[in-house]
Amino acid sequence: MPFAETPEPPYTVVVFTNTRTEGDQGYGVMAARMEELATRQPGYLGFESARDEELGIACSYWATDADAAAWKQVAEHLVAQERGRSAWYSDYRVRVATVTRAYGPS
Amino acid sequence: MPFAETPEPPYTVVVFTNTRTEGDQGYGVMAARMEELATRQPGYLGFESARDEELGIACSYWATDADAAAWKQVAEHLVAQERGRSAWYSDYRVRVATVTRAYGPS
Repeated sequence: MPFAETPEPPYTVVVFTNTRTEGDQGYGVMAARMEELATRQPGYLGFESARDEELGIACSYWATDADAAAWKQVAEHLVAQERGRSAWYSDYRVRVATVTRAYGPS
Repeated sequence: MPFAETPEPPYTVVVFTNTRTEGDQGYGVMAARMEELATRQPGYLGFESARDEELGIACSYWATDADAAAWKQVAEHLVAQERGRSAWYSDYRVRVATVTRAYGPS
């Protein structure tokens, strides 16, 4: 199931768009670890990601803006963020947003 | 430049996550047409997308929530949405959100 099972809005989405550097450099292991660690944080709702040749987009969903902000400050995640800036990502944008409407095909 | 050049928040993001059906079925031409048409709508700020084997994520950025809602109702886009539901997407989610914070590496 590639879709996050999110509740009725409002909730928070962090949209992380990024371009990678060449080579893995430990990225795959750390990315899997961060996904696993995120699921155990307060307010975690779900995660969706896609990557092609040009761009990666990762959306993490949180019950509140404060929950998303707390995840950013988790110690092991801070280490990963530093490694991301120095080694894994050639460029990135982070956008924190409050979801106000959501719908699917039904 | 795969990143949208968005202004200081607040602005609106529409996060469209989707899974494709098999085959193109006219999708590529229509997707390019919709991207081009979107750039000419009031309040359009930018677009980012990525797709891999499992999932596609497309983020469109708008000056206001009303601009995003107006784009949804553009006649040619309504036709594309119907074709998306009936032919191109096996499943999807649309989430409309207000960006409150944004940052990059600098």
